Amino acid sequence: MTDLIYEQPLNEKVRSYLRLENLAQQLQNNVVQDQHHQCFYPLFSLLELTERCDYRSEVLKDIDRQVQQLRSICYLQEADSEQVNQLIQQLTSLKAPLQNPERIGYKLKQDKFITALRQRFNMTGAYCNFDLPQLHFWLGKDWPQRQQDIQYWLQQFKPLLAPITLLLTLYRNTAEFTCLSAQAGFYQGDSPHPLSLIRVKIDPIYNCYPTISGHRNRYAIHFVDFSLHRHTNETVEFSLATCD
Amino acid sequence: MTDLIYEQPLNEKVRSYLRLENLAQQLQNNVVQDQHHQCFYPLFSLLELTERCDYRSEVLKDIDRQVQQLRSICYLQEADSEQVNQLIQQLTSLKAPLQNPERIGYKLKQDKFITALRQRFNMTGAYCNFDLPQLHFWLGKDWPQRQQDIQYWLQQFKPLLAPITLLLTLYRNTAEFTCLSAQAGFYQGDSPHPLSLIRVKIDPIYNCYPTISGHRNRYAIHFVDFSLHRHTNETVEFSLATCD
Repeated sequence: MTDLIYEQPLNEKVRSYLRLENLAQQLQNNVVQDQHHQCFYPLFSLLELTERCDYRSEVLKDIDRQVQQLRSICYLQEADSEQVNQLIQQLTSLKAPLQNPERIGYKLKQDKFITALRQRFNMTGAYCNFDLPQLHFWLGKDWPQRQQDIQYWLQQFKPLLAPITLLLTLYRNTAEFTCLSAQAGFYQGDSPHPLSLIRVKIDPIYNCYPTISGHRNRYAIHFVDFSLHRHTNETVEFSLATCD
Repeated sequence: MTDLIYEQPLNEKVRSYLRLENLAQQLQNNVVQDQHHQCFYPLFSLLELTERCDYRSEVLKDIDRQVQQLRSICYLQEADSEQVNQLIQQLTSLKAPLQNPERIGYKLKQDKFITALRQRFNMTGAYCNFDLPQLHFWLGKDWPQRQQDIQYWLQQFKPLLAPITLLLTLYRNTAEFTCLSAQAGFYQGDSPHPLSLIRVKIDPIYNCYPTISGHRNRYAIHFVDFSLHRHTNETVEFSLATCD
């Protein structure tokens, strides 16, 4: 088994980004592999999250902030100005689709098939053949046809998901992993400036997972034994990246 | 594409059976193919349905009724008495596990891992790495290990699912398919005795799915055009089985 990376957002913005990224990855898996009706779970979650909150203005602001930061780096001697300029261009190109007046997922809310399914999926086990004969019909279609449908549905969220993916990459790239050890399964730290994201890399051989808490510039990591369901008292070696 | 079969229960008992059978099939698919965290959706639905309603006494009664019916058939000249006796034995052997005082799914309700996940899965998109680090750890395990876990979870429902599967097979076998045609996309029928299940087989080439309504000995079938989302006025050829 390879090392696992656990992430903890230290602000609300990154928390939302990670949730959306996770759902996008799930839906993407459903484009690659035929998982039958299960593609609808991440799809409906994406619809619900984007209905509850319009993330676009926040993402636009974030893009501007990143572009500004990159422009200031650009003049430093050690910066690879070509790479930085490319990033600036990439970020800037992602702004236009976000400025579209139509709300994200708008087309799916107009779609009768999607709407009928969504109502039923909120009820336990209510996606039987007799609850949703249209789902049964759709599942009977050849996989390439259904794959195209899922791709089209995912596409509706691309204006939001593409910048979020890039912004998360930028956040993650602000810090390298450092090897550390948690005495009696506990580690805490702080930072002089606000952090956005804590990343913990650990070998599954310890049979432990971290529960991380924190806000802005403080964080604490407890390692929990998976089989015993409680805090471990062992010393745990792990790697940590604290991202700006 | 092959013909699709749509089923409509005509009583509450068969409706419950079909829901449970559907969830069991979903979970079974997750034993066969690695679909990551998605195995938890049918698992939690099975848990919820069996918590809401204890199906065991109904299933036990149904087994007894079927055994009685089979015994009366046994003496008929045209019956294959060996096959009938085998069925009686099979049904009878499924009674003991249902009479266990422990409620179905009891062990899973005691399981801390399952319980923690279940709470989060009720919230939209809340199964991120930082919501459920234990899920991330579990997903990092090798597939054969996870497969074993899923198999064990499915096993907990076997005392209920095994008889339901057999009973549904018996219901389905009470009728053969007959070719019929629905003028202007509509067909209705009735039966002198109460029915349990209506089964409609149709070639997807019609681009139609049936919406079936009915109760006990009456039923109506409307064929709906999948692309137009409305009742079709075409004549639709289909096969029908009305099961006792």
